[in-house]
Amino acid sequence: MSKKIKLKKSKKAGLAPGTLFFVGEKKVNNTSISLINYNSEKFSTNNLDFNYFEQVSSTTSGVNWLNINGLHNIDDIKKICRKFDIHNLVMEDIVNTTHRPKIDFLDDSIFLIAKMYSFNQDKRIIQSEQVSFILKNNFVITFQEEPGDVFKPTRDRIKSDNSRVRALAADYLLYSLLDNLVDSYYQLLEDLDDSIDSFEQNIIKDSNSISLSDFFTLKKSLLFLRKSVWPLRDISSQLARSEHNQIKTTTLPYMKDLYDHVIQVVDSVEAFRDLANGITEMYLSITNNRMNEIMKVLTVCTSIFIPLTFIVGVYGMNFEFMPELKWKGSYFFLWGLMIFITISLIVFFKKKKWL
Amino acid sequence: MSKKIKLKKSKKAGLAPGTLFFVGEKKVNNTSISLINYNSEKFSTNNLDFNYFEQVSSTTSGVNWLNINGLHNIDDIKKICRKFDIHNLVMEDIVNTTHRPKIDFLDDSIFLIAKMYSFNQDKRIIQSEQVSFILKNNFVITFQEEPGDVFKPTRDRIKSDNSRVRALAADYLLYSLLDNLVDSYYQLLEDLDDSIDSFEQNIIKDSNSISLSDFFTLKKSLLFLRKSVWPLRDISSQLARSEHNQIKTTTLPYMKDLYDHVIQVVDSVEAFRDLANGITEMYLSITNNRMNEIMKVLTVCTSIFIPLTFIVGVYGMNFEFMPELKWKGSYFFLWGLMIFITISLIVFFKKKKWL
Amino acid sequence: MSKKIKLKKSKKAGLAPGTLFFVGEKKVNNTSISLINYNSEKFSTNNLDFNYFEQVSSTTSGVNWLNINGLHNIDDIKKICRKFDIHNLVMEDIVNTTHRPKIDFLDDSIFLIAKMYSFNQDKRIIQSEQVSFILKNNFVITFQEEPGDVFKPTRDRIKSDNSRVRALAADYLLYSLLDNLVDSYYQLLEDLDDSIDSFEQNIIKDSNSISLSDFFTLKKSLLFLRKSVWPLRDISSQLARSEHNQIKTTTLPYMKDLYDHVIQVVDSVEAFRDLANGITEMYLSITNNRMNEIMKVLTVCTSIFIPLTFIVGVYGMNFEFMPELKWKGSYFFLWGLMIFITISLIVFFKKKKWL
Amino acid sequence: MSKKIKLKKSKKAGLAPGTLFFVGEKKVNNTSISLINYNSEKFSTNNLDFNYFEQVSSTTSGVNWLNINGLHNIDDIKKICRKFDIHNLVMEDIVNTTHRPKIDFLDDSIFLIAKMYSFNQDKRIIQSEQVSFILKNNFVITFQEEPGDVFKPTRDRIKSDNSRVRALAADYLLYSLLDNLVDSYYQLLEDLDDSIDSFEQNIIKDSNSISLSDFFTLKKSLLFLRKSVWPLRDISSQLARSEHNQIKTTTLPYMKDLYDHVIQVVDSVEAFRDLANGITEMYLSITNNRMNEIMKVLTVCTSIFIPLTFIVGVYGMNFEFMPELKWKGSYFFLWGLMIFITISLIVFFKKKKWL
Amino acid sequence: MSKKIKLKKSKKAGLAPGTLFFVGEKKVNNTSISLINYNSEKFSTNNLDFNYFEQVSSTTSGVNWLNINGLHNIDDIKKICRKFDIHNLVMEDIVNTTHRPKIDFLDDSIFLIAKMYSFNQDKRIIQSEQVSFILKNNFVITFQEEPGDVFKPTRDRIKSDNSRVRALAADYLLYSLLDNLVDSYYQLLEDLDDSIDSFEQNIIKDSNSISLSDFFTLKKSLLFLRKSVWPLRDISSQLARSEHNQIKTTTLPYMKDLYDHVIQVVDSVEAFRDLANGITEMYLSITNNRMNEIMKVLTVCTSIFIPLTFIVGVYGMNFEFMPELKWKGSYFFLWGLMIFITISLIVFFKKKKWL
Repeated sequence: MSKKIKLKKSKKAGLAPGTLFFVGEKKVNNTSISLINYNSEKFSTNNLDFNYFEQVSSTTSGVNWLNINGLHNIDDIKKICRKFDIHNLVMEDIVNTTHRPKIDFLDDSIFLIAKMYSFNQDKRIIQSEQVSFILKNNFVITFQEEPGDVFKPTRDRIKSDNSRVRALAADYLLYSLLDNLVDSYYQLLEDLDDSIDSFEQNIIKDSNSISLSDFFTLKKSLLFLRKSVWPLRDISSQLARSEHNQIKTTTLPYMKDLYDHVIQVVDSVEAFRDLANGITEMYLSITNNRMNEIMKVLTVCTSIFIPLTFIVGVYGMNFEFMPELKWKGSYFFLWGLMIFITISLIVFFKKKKWL
Repeated sequence: MSKKIKLKKSKKAGLAPGTLFFVGEKKVNNTSISLINYNSEKFSTNNLDFNYFEQVSSTTSGVNWLNINGLHNIDDIKKICRKFDIHNLVMEDIVNTTHRPKIDFLDDSIFLIAKMYSFNQDKRIIQSEQVSFILKNNFVITFQEEPGDVFKPTRDRIKSDNSRVRALAADYLLYSLLDNLVDSYYQLLEDLDDSIDSFEQNIIKDSNSISLSDFFTLKKSLLFLRKSVWPLRDISSQLARSEHNQIKTTTLPYMKDLYDHVIQVVDSVEAFRDLANGITEMYLSITNNRMNEIMKVLTVCTSIFIPLTFIVGVYGMNFEFMPELKWKGSYFFLWGLMIFITISLIVFFKKKKWL
Repeated sequence: MSKKIKLKKSKKAGLAPGTLFFVGEKKVNNTSISLINYNSEKFSTNNLDFNYFEQVSSTTSGVNWLNINGLHNIDDIKKICRKFDIHNLVMEDIVNTTHRPKIDFLDDSIFLIAKMYSFNQDKRIIQSEQVSFILKNNFVITFQEEPGDVFKPTRDRIKSDNSRVRALAADYLLYSLLDNLVDSYYQLLEDLDDSIDSFEQNIIKDSNSISLSDFFTLKKSLLFLRKSVWPLRDISSQLARSEHNQIKTTTLPYMKDLYDHVIQVVDSVEAFRDLANGITEMYLSITNNRMNEIMKVLTVCTSIFIPLTFIVGVYGMNFEFMPELKWKGSYFFLWGLMIFITISLIVFFKKKKWL
Repeated sequence: MSKKIKLKKSKKAGLAPGTLFFVGEKKVNNTSISLINYNSEKFSTNNLDFNYFEQVSSTTSGVNWLNINGLHNIDDIKKICRKFDIHNLVMEDIVNTTHRPKIDFLDDSIFLIAKMYSFNQDKRIIQSEQVSFILKNNFVITFQEEPGDVFKPTRDRIKSDNSRVRALAADYLLYSLLDNLVDSYYQLLEDLDDSIDSFEQNIIKDSNSISLSDFFTLKKSLLFLRKSVWPLRDISSQLARSEHNQIKTTTLPYMKDLYDHVIQVVDSVEAFRDLANGITEMYLSITNNRMNEIMKVLTVCTSIFIPLTFIVGVYGMNFEFMPELKWKGSYFFLWGLMIFITISLIVFFKKKKWL
Repeated sequence: MSKKIKLKKSKKAGLAPGTLFFVGEKKVNNTSISLINYNSEKFSTNNLDFNYFEQVSSTTSGVNWLNINGLHNIDDIKKICRKFDIHNLVMEDIVNTTHRPKIDFLDDSIFLIAKMYSFNQDKRIIQSEQVSFILKNNFVITFQEEPGDVFKPTRDRIKSDNSRVRALAADYLLYSLLDNLVDSYYQLLEDLDDSIDSFEQNIIKDSNSISLSDFFTLKKSLLFLRKSVWPLRDISSQLARSEHNQIKTTTLPYMKDLYDHVIQVVDSVEAFRDLANGITEMYLSITNNRMNEIMKVLTVCTSIFIPLTFIVGVYGMNFEFMPELKWKGSYFFLWGLMIFITISLIVFFKKKKWL
């Protein structure tokens, strides 16, 4: 996991600002483009290749959703950005997949970077992917690192004739896509919740079987999740209060709703961090407790047998003159003494609640 | 408990925003509706079923309190909401019982979500239930998950002819219901206080008998209680400073009073969290102390008998030439030596304060 | 102590807001009232009973300080409040002795709730009492739970002919009383400081003699003291910046001075909390250290004698063929060997700094 | 140290506000006064006694620095304050040497309280002294508890003919004195830094030789230093942004510079607190580690010899029928067995990395 | 490292404000100066010595970057500053290499102090160097303590004919240099990340091999890095929102980009601090765990053999009347008994999960 969440920017350090350079792991081989065009009456889906891409006109009527998968081919990204008059610094941010989530209200468009997370149950790691959104007039352009199905619900709804997304404009489409993204966070939070629950159960049952390094990885995940979710709070808040020309007033209640959801995610992440700290504390307490228990057994055992062993050692001595050795019954008397000592000690330990 | 406070939203993830879908556990079988209509002179209570519900008119004179129990039947909720012209997103929030507490000042109404908590002493869990309030002209509409008696005091007061609630308008009714809700938090805080007290007593008396996982559950409860109470602070503060047309100026002092009470709850929750942390620390200190005590007994016991056992071991050896064995009195001299060693060690340990 | 600082409000939960109900412990049997009337030339003190109380006129000239001791007799309180036209919600706050400190700037008066604390050295608990102040024209009305001598300095100064309080108006009287109250906090802080100091000394001298539960009580006291002092900060700040008609501009510098004192109390409480945490840490460190020392003694003792005991055990065996047993001098050689082993181990432990 | 930083105000509690009373330890016997008068051309220094003090006129031309050492003689302080028309509450704050640092912008003057700290390397304590400054027209009046040399640099510069202080007005003199004061904090911080460094070195070398109570005193010092430095931040910030008639616009950049220095001191204090916490943690880790090491030696030693001791115990039994005792070579075989067991255990412990 | 990050200011304490004095270690022997002059068509690089420096005119056309390496020669710095009319306090800040990062918007120029950090992998220390920037009309003047290659990317881009830096004005040059500086932080963060990773790996593999003092040094580095990066946040934010005459509106998006990068650095530093704390916790947990394991082995070993040793001790006694000694088979019965005890104990420990 540590590989995934590491800072990758240095590869780029030293390049002129505005020089395009793909930063991140190459996740897919080819840039693939799909265009969904719709209005309230009809919709069409096209998987484009770059030869046909030229035909896309930035003035097509209806709402257009242009989705780009794969960011490593800088030339392709450049072509797309130029077609839509996208500023160089924006282009640079799109291909730098380690960018912090942010929103830029540009003169004629809105640019937004967010992170998609998924919890890989097998490897127990959180995988992150960067998505960039551009809202410009009747176009929403999304840039993903690899094809994913987070946006499937919106895609399905576009196909449905009387859905609200079909009836409304591109800003609602942006909202709908962001809502899908935040919904995917809930899935992640549930997975994390299950993980925390199972750690908790394991600690209570038997603290030995839990893997401390797994738990540390979980805490690290929460740390990095938090780092991505916090900026989203600002982003959605700005969208909800926005007076930008690209966002219609009628869409603002939806953006406010989005903001509510993000706040809920932020709250949950913070609560999970507190929970994880609580589990650490509980783990230390339980370990301490167990050590206490072990110490008691050791102490009781040692304290009872060491005096007895001394006593029998005494009568194992080979002195020629030891009167007790000759006395009949002294052996049995000694047993009596030892039993008495044992019982006394057991009573003492009972009183101390060590037994 | 963890089941109760888990995030449940994913069930809904992927639905179009505005699509109604009940999120939560189905707690009652039927939606039941009651309408209390009153003015300063008379009042009437009606338990409606949906056939008669059509007769409720949103223009009835006097103050009307419409209480809905049970949110799983989406169609019923839809019918009610449409009758009162409630926005789709509000409807969605009402039936999503995992929503964060919030207030929305809409154009012609006020919408408010809060949580009701009760501490189940048997299972030692906090049970939460969501309540939504809509204040619209002379109507207050409340949506509960299951029938509860938190609002009983207000109901009783409405029945009393010269109560203030009878004399005032719907915004005072809203205040009165919220005040009942906050009062129920005090009950919960007292139960938590008793729990913390009993943990504290148990730790001081005997740290072994406390259940660490119970204590962890308590801390988790405080965590989630806090998550619900904090937003209430903002909500009541906004109500107290509100200039919304639905709230009369004469009601503002009452809302300010409500705000004072919420602040007091928030303070108490924070104080309880500090207390719980203090108990954790004390628990660790006491465990440490106890381990120290055990170690001392072990050490004293071992340190006294191990040298003695060595000495008697020496004279248990079978060498043919050991002059001491032949000396008369050497046995008694040895006893003297061993008693001297024992006393010296005891003095040494006394000086070290280990005895 | 826990009994004293517990939340008591639930007793009241369910009453109509504005219904008077005494919340708290009944501390005195009768409500007693005293009225001090003064101007720059003369002063008079009267202990009133309720029969004569009717004669008090809210329009008496000069400055009037009406002090009420005992809040459990609701009727008496009602009578007083009605005479001075005090709002129902204010009355409710006066008799609810668990209220959070607060200030209300009403149209024609200022209402203020604060806590008085005293440290009971015998029981080592902090006792709290609620005081309410009403400043209305030339009247200052104070409500105490039981007669106390915190305000004695002001009382004495009123008796002194050329004191400033005699020369100035009712707002200065309010300031003077609040100043007495804050001064009483300093006394409490000093007592706490002594307690912390003695804990610190005890820990350094001998950590066994300190009572962890006493220390925990101290931390709890700080926690609740803080809960009461923080609101006072806002209160005094609002008084210092107030433009309310009841506060003259010439009194503002004194209110500013009061604010400075409150800030100093707040700072001290925070510093004491940090100190208390530091002591907890030091306690853990010292306990750890002591355990280390014990372990060393145990380990050194065991590590030296266990090998020796083994050796003498070897020659205590009864094998018929053990050549060494027959050799003359082997006994003394063995002693030499054992002394050598002992010295080697001692050197080893010295090098490890365990001795 | 605890004696020095204790709250002393209670001695005064109960006095009328504005009653002068010296609070603090009497540090010098006599109040001594010195007056430095200068302008760009000349300067004169006078040590005044109170007989001649009458001759000082508050209207002398040039810049005047009046320095008072010793605050216990209330009458002297009163005389001075009256001559310069200083408000009673200010006078009260000057002689209360436990006052929190603060700034008051009065109508015709600026009043400022700060703390001077010095680290006494011998006693390892921080000694604090209060300094008050009054800037009124062409006078700067400073009140110190005892004569000190913190202001020596300014004094020297005044003696130098072409220094900036000589060329500028009284507000620059105030700045220059405050700058000296902040410079003295740097000296203190360096001493603390050395202390922290030496604690760190000692812990790494050998944790036993450090004195926990000394370390606790260091942390306490940081706590109280912080309490004094934080208000200075506000004070210098207010000076830098001041539009008060006593501060010329040309002096503001210098005040801004002062603010920068104070911020740097605040940052350092915070960083030192973090460092001190880090050292506490490291100390606990190292102690833990050492205990681990001790435990390993104990365990290895015990685990090897206890089985061997058992074995030789077996053949020390006196049963009449023990066939092995008669076998020739069984003694040597037993030695072989014991060596084998020892080696096995050593290999086992090596694998566990305990050796 | 501690030497490097120590406060050095005291050396200067006592000098008149505005007196130039080099504070810091002398890192290079001579002050070297280089001037790069360029416009969109051509560029020239000159390494100046002070004889030729007189020829530099502050009115040269094109963009000029004057870089000074070495600050210890106060006279040289003075000469440069006077040529460009730089205020005395600014000059003082430039040569005080322990100054906190800050920005000053002066009337005709912008003055900025920042820190450059590099992680020395050999000595595992962070080395810091102060850089000051002055932007004044078409001049950017940089003051470094020693020659470094952090600005190489900008230098290279200036050499490239169609680079953006060549086309734009001096404010873009300032941005470009600051961007290089922030890029160098990323390099440092990666090195720290690697360090943290390797600590983490070592702890999981074998906690004994990690050096606690190295880890403490790492935490200290983060502490001081944070101290330098936090002010940069304000600085870049002020640049991005600046309306100063030296910054063109077209450069603001680049400054905003710079701000984004600084925020990302700040976030990472905070995350690393959390990570480091997490590692400390994990280390303590693992150490605790290991101690537990050791204790178990000790306890199991002792608890099994101590009773057996007692038993064989019993039959090593030399009493004349011990019937069992005479019985045939009692030796073998005893072995059976001992084997039974051993197995019972092993089962007991298995059940307790200690084996």
